[in-house]
Parts: sequence; structure tokens; C-alpha cells
Amino acid sequence: MPGINPDRLLRDLRDLRGIGAQGTGVVRPAFSEADMEARRWLKTRFENADLETTLDGVGNVVGRSRKSGPALVIGSHSDTQPEGGWLDGALGVIYGLEVARACAEDPATADLAIDAVSWQDEEGNFLGCIGSRSWCGVLTPEDEAAAKGRDGESLADALQRVGLAGVPRLSVEEERHIGYLEAHIEQGAYLEDAGEQIGVVTAIVGIRGMTITFTGEQNHAGTTTMARRRDASAGLYEMAHRINQEFVEITDECTVWTMGNAVIEPGAPSIVPGRAVLTLQFRDQDDALLDRLQARVQEIGTEIATRGKIKVDVRSNRAPVRPSKMNVDFQAHIHRAAEETAPGRWRRMPSAAGHDPMVIHHRLPCAMLFIPSIKGISHDFAEDSHEADIVAGCQVLADAAASILRGSRWRAS
Amino acid sequence: MPGINPDRLLRDLRDLRGIGAQGTGVVRPAFSEADMEARRWLKTRFENADLETTLDGVGNVVGRSRKSGPALVIGSHSDTQPEGGWLDGALGVIYGLEVARACAEDPATADLAIDAVSWQDEEGNFLGCIGSRSWCGVLTPEDEAAAKGRDGESLADALQRVGLAGVPRLSVEEERHIGYLEAHIEQGAYLEDAGEQIGVVTAIVGIRGMTITFTGEQNHAGTTTMARRRDASAGLYEMAHRINQEFVEITDECTVWTMGNAVIEPGAPSIVPGRAVLTLQFRDQDDALLDRLQARVQEIGTEIATRGKIKVDVRSNRAPVRPSKMNVDFQAHIHRAAEETAPGRWRRMPSAAGHDPMVIHHRLPCAMLFIPSIKGISHDFAEDSHEADIVAGCQVLADAAASILRGSRWRAS
Repeated sequence: MPGINPDRLLRDLRDLRGIGAQGTGVVRPAFSEADMEARRWLKTRFENADLETTLDGVGNVVGRSRKSGPALVIGSHSDTQPEGGWLDGALGVIYGLEVARACAEDPATADLAIDAVSWQDEEGNFLGCIGSRSWCGVLTPEDEAAAKGRDGESLADALQRVGLAGVPRLSVEEERHIGYLEAHIEQGAYLEDAGEQIGVVTAIVGIRGMTITFTGEQNHAGTTTMARRRDASAGLYEMAHRINQEFVEITDECTVWTMGNAVIEPGAPSIVPGRAVLTLQFRDQDDALLDRLQARVQEIGTEIATRGKIKVDVRSNRAPVRPSKMNVDFQAHIHRAAEETAPGRWRRMPSAAGHDPMVIHHRLPCAMLFIPSIKGISHDFAEDSHEADIVAGCQVLADAAASILRGSRWRAS
Repeated sequence: MPGINPDRLLRDLRDLRGIGAQGTGVVRPAFSEADMEARRWLKTRFENADLETTLDGVGNVVGRSRKSGPALVIGSHSDTQPEGGWLDGALGVIYGLEVARACAEDPATADLAIDAVSWQDEEGNFLGCIGSRSWCGVLTPEDEAAAKGRDGESLADALQRVGLAGVPRLSVEEERHIGYLEAHIEQGAYLEDAGEQIGVVTAIVGIRGMTITFTGEQNHAGTTTMARRRDASAGLYEMAHRINQEFVEITDECTVWTMGNAVIEPGAPSIVPGRAVLTLQFRDQDDALLDRLQARVQEIGTEIATRGKIKVDVRSNRAPVRPSKMNVDFQAHIHRAAEETAPGRWRRMPSAAGHDPMVIHHRLPCAMLFIPSIKGISHDFAEDSHEADIVAGCQVLADAAASILRGSRWRAS
């Protein structure tokens, strides 16, 4: 299998870190000067690896292999949060480049086609995943017209400013591309806690958000007996505590739920609250489980309302994000590769954060792998990973990519 | 026993209502023009009842009986909330006047000494219960110097403005006064709910206030597993719901508790809360029960903190108000009188709101009676009571006063 070059990998990562560096972190939001400088630097690095490279009209950098297909696309994004970590998307982009180089250098894999990519604006400065959306053909003129940067600039002005207005945009090549692979830091601490090195992503979790409004009757906290009260806050406190108790029974260790806000009105010590509003968000990789959790919230609400004291209104506060299942066959290739490089030190796990495969998996089979984040820190200048993990992750990805393409060739022949 | 005059009673109440009237309510905060006009009108009414009447240096109107002691003081306050009901304190003031008149008119009770009173500023425009405090000798120069009206005027300026600066202030006459009686609308709905006419107040409840602060760790709501979370809100939701569940088991039907505010920080749907603050207030007539409730809050806090995820800080947020016990002998006289006028339609009950006897009971034995509030409404223009209840309450108070004074004479002779 193709041996990756650890020194070259780490040097490229460090060089990319130097563009937009700020302390231990990086400031490279999409279409900023630093972002565009990084993209031009990547284009040169991709070309040096003999990839036919394009900076397309939406800012994607795509390094196309000169080998005939079937081809795998491997990459991530080089734009960052306003205060980003140095690895985040950069890790996956340089992995794509290194996997392409490693395969090309090994006579046993030199015939395999690996296209390296850096998508534009995964982090949503103008519009989240605008690069992969464009590439997948799901970026609408309306979305594009509405896209504005955090500082108020329109997308059209930004494209003009960086010289991309009117430049052609690349698209998925359905005849040639058989899938997309992306590596990322975990952004959580499962792997570190378990002393493991590789996470094989099963799915990117779905997200639901609900707002639960309790309406009772505002009253005097001294003279209104408990029996007569219609205390909206009592409904909220019961709902919130029961969610914490009852969700445990019907979820698994990867489900998360958060009641990040509660408002009690009017909020005075001596007034029985007349209105209370609870905000709930929950995430899981299993849409059916998300349905069950949503139904449980509704059941608790109905139970409270049925007692006749408090009205309970349960409603979604956002369009649900469906879980994005990763391709099972690709996952199996990554398992085998992980077991080779890190025997017994890998696990299947969902991704709790969003990534470009949420867009791409509608067009191409996708898979992701994670390496450990030190202390689980992410979207922060303090974000980091151990070099040994960085190197191991890239080797696993290279092995898995070669194995997937080789298997694909077998099936094709 | 002395028969009160219902028409005269209701006419006086309606006339007093006319001073500062606004719609169905009254606006007569202490030391306002309307308040002073009402006090001068009361002085005339008291004098017409042959009471030796003084508008004292703090605004109290005291109508002293010309009969020798022992004397009962009967009254309430004629000042109102910024938007007050027409009865509230006015009811008890006119009751005092009417009881004095009724006793004087009945040859069987004409020898009894009833002093009628309207205390100043029970509602706390400048300083709550300033009139009864002054009369009881517990108004300090510091309190007086700090007292300011809601509109910012100092008490000294207000006294100057209304012509009371330098006017002597009356005090309790310990040789003469054997007790204080006050009637009031219930301001709640126990009596109306039970179809009863008279409440015999056992005590004015004590009040405690607590602030419970939960400290955890702020984190990302997607990537932080439930197992790793130190979610401050979870502690708050558990504490609040358990207080609602567990207080029921250790309180009686007159205890009230309110969690009128909860703050979740930072309060965003996608952030695990790092800090949460719950406000709890509870009231009961039994100080030992208040101690037990406070201890239970501490126990729940300790239990949550002992799990090692969340720090819990439980502390008082106000000086505790101790319950004010009403005189048991006086209560017995009111029971008997209530059973005469409203057989089977009276009850013993605590007062959930504060009144001048909280001050006076430290100097004199006190008792209170309640009449029903329609729908329990209070401190609102909509406040009202049925005429039959207004009349019945005054008759009970007159009978009880005569009985107390007669009993006192027996003991004295």
C-alpha cells in the first residue's frame, strides 16, 4: 500500500498554517486575503504534485489527477472560522494532496486517480459549504444572491474583488468520480478519552431544535395559593428535568441534547410566572431516534397540559437537519486500513459537527475519518493534535483510498 | 352586642373612595395630595364620632376615645399603592371608625374605649409602615433620613410640603392600650373558594428568599458528549422540579413557594450552559417549617454537587421576615363573633401579605380578620368585595372588640 511521507505532510501543514497565522491559530475566513493566498499556494502545491489544478469561479481549488478514472475526490476546506484552529479543514486538504502524491509514487498504486480538493467557505462566512454546493449543482441563484459576508460584503462583490467573477465553476464528474473522502480532527474528546487514534465516521448527525412555550397566569407570589396557581415556570422545570431523565433511557452514548436557554416571565421573585419558554436542541445519527425524542417531548408536553393548569406549545424552531449516512462499503475499507495502522485503536462514531459531506453525500458516496483533538478543543486558537496521530490518520486514509479504488477497478473490470 | 350601621359604613367607604378615585380604583400614595385630603377628611369623620383626633407628625390619623381605658386600637391605613383598590386599607380604617361609633351608641358598650386609626404609608411609598413604626417607637433617624418617595422626594421635604414638619408624633400608650385589631380584604381567594365570609388570621407569614447558583463548564452542544458535560442548567432544572415535588410533601395548604426567575448562561441553543441562577422565595406562618424548607434546598444542592459535575451555591438573598403570630386570646374572641354572624362560614388562616401588625405585634397583642376578595384580586383597580361581606366583617369586628374589652374589664376588676 502507498506509504505517505510524514515530513512532507507536516511541512505542508505548517506552511499552510503560516498563511493567516495569528498566535497558535489561523484567521483565514472565506474570500479574505489570507484565504485567497492560501488557495493560490495550494494550487501551486497541487500542480507540483502533477495534479491538473483549477481555482474555480466560486473559490474551490481542485487538483485533478491525470490518471483515467474511476477517481476518488479527497479533501476538505482551507477557509477557517474568524478565530480558527490550524488543523480543522487544513488537515483534510493536505491529506488529499499527500494521498495523491503517495499513491503516485508507489508503483503499485500509480495508476489510481486521486483528485485533491479544497472546498470554499465550509465555515459559512458568506454561505456555509458554498464550494461543495456549487460543485454538486445545488447552489441556487437565490442563495447566491442572498449570500453576504460577516462584514456585510455581497458574494458578488467578493468574487469581483478576488478576481473570480465570471470564472467557470467545476462540477462533479459523474462518469469519473466514484466517491468523496474527507479526514478531519474530531472536535470532541471521544478518541482521546479512549486512547484511540482513528474514528470511522458512520454518519454526520442530524439536528433538531424545538421551542416549548408554557402559558399559565401571572399572579402574586404571597396570596395565590399553590392550589390556585397556574405557574408557567413549574411546567418548564418539569419538562426540562424530565427530558434529562427520560432521554437517557431512550438514547445511546452518542446522542446529545441541550436546553441552552430558558426564559421565565416576568422574572420577579414575588410574581408567579405567567409564561416560560424553553429552548431544546438534540442531535443523533439516527433519524428514527430523533423522531422518537421529538415525540417524547410532545408527550411530556401533552401530559403537563392535560392537568389543566398550563398550556404547552411544542414546536420546531429550525428546519431539521437530517443525518448524513456515510457509505458502508467505504467505511469497511477505512476499518481495515485503521486496523492495519492502529490495531484495536479505532472506533466507529458519528460526527457531531457538520462537514461538506452533508452536501456531497446526495451526489456521491462519502466517508470520513477522524483523528483525536487534544482535549477536544476546536474552533479555537488552542486547537491541536499530536503529530503521531496526524501521520497515522493520513496513512489510514491513503490505504483506504487505494483499497477503495482497487476494489472499484476489480468491479469495473 | 353593638349593632353596626351598614348604610353609614358603606357611605363612608364610598366617600373615602371618592378622594383620589380613578376609574374603579384609587390613587392615594402616602403624602400625595389625595392622601392628605383623605387624612383630613378622616380627621373630621373621627371628630364627628366624638373621638379626640390628631393628625400626627408622621401623618397618622388617631381618633382617641374619650372613655377611660383599657382601650383597643382599631384601624388600618388609608394610603394606597400607585394603582390601588378602593378597599385594601380603607376598609379597616372605616371599620375602626364604625366600631367606635357602634359601641358608643349601644348603652351596653358605651363605656368601652375604642381608638380609631389610619396609619401612614403602609404601602411603602416612602418607607413601608412608617406610621406604625413611628407609633411603636421603632422608626430610627437613619431610616427616616434614608426614606424617599417613589418620585425621589425626601421624607423631610414631603413633611415640609404637607405641613407636618415639627408636628408632634403620637405613641402607643402602654398603660391604656391592651391591643390592636385590624380588618382587611383577604387579597387571595381561600374564602371565596370555600364560600366563607370571615378569615381569622393566625399569623402573618414569614418570608425567605434564596438564590441558588449552579456552576458547570460552558461547551459545544454538538461535540461535547453527555458523559463529559458539566451542564449548569441540568442542576437548575433538577433543583427546581424537585423543590416543586418535595415541598408538597413537607408543607401544608397555606405554604407558598415561587421560583420566579431562572437565568441560563450564556443562553444560546448550541452552547452547553456554564452557569445558571435560580431565584426561590417561600412563605409560611411557621418559622420551623421555613427552616425545614431552607434545609431541604440545601440538601438537594449538596446532593447535586456531590455527583461532582456541578458546583452549587445556596444562599439567602434577603433578610428573613419572621412570621408574626396573632394573639391567641384575641383570635378566640373573633372566632366566637364570627360564629355568631356567619355560622360555619369562617376559618383560621394565615395572612400571606404583610400588614401593620407585623410592626405592632412587638408592642401590643394584635389580631386581624379578613373578608373575601372577589376573585382574590388585590392591588388592582378591579379589587372589590361583596357588600354583604363588608357588612358582616364589620359586625364581627365590633362584636369581637366589645368582647375583648369586656373580658379585659372583668380581668381588671
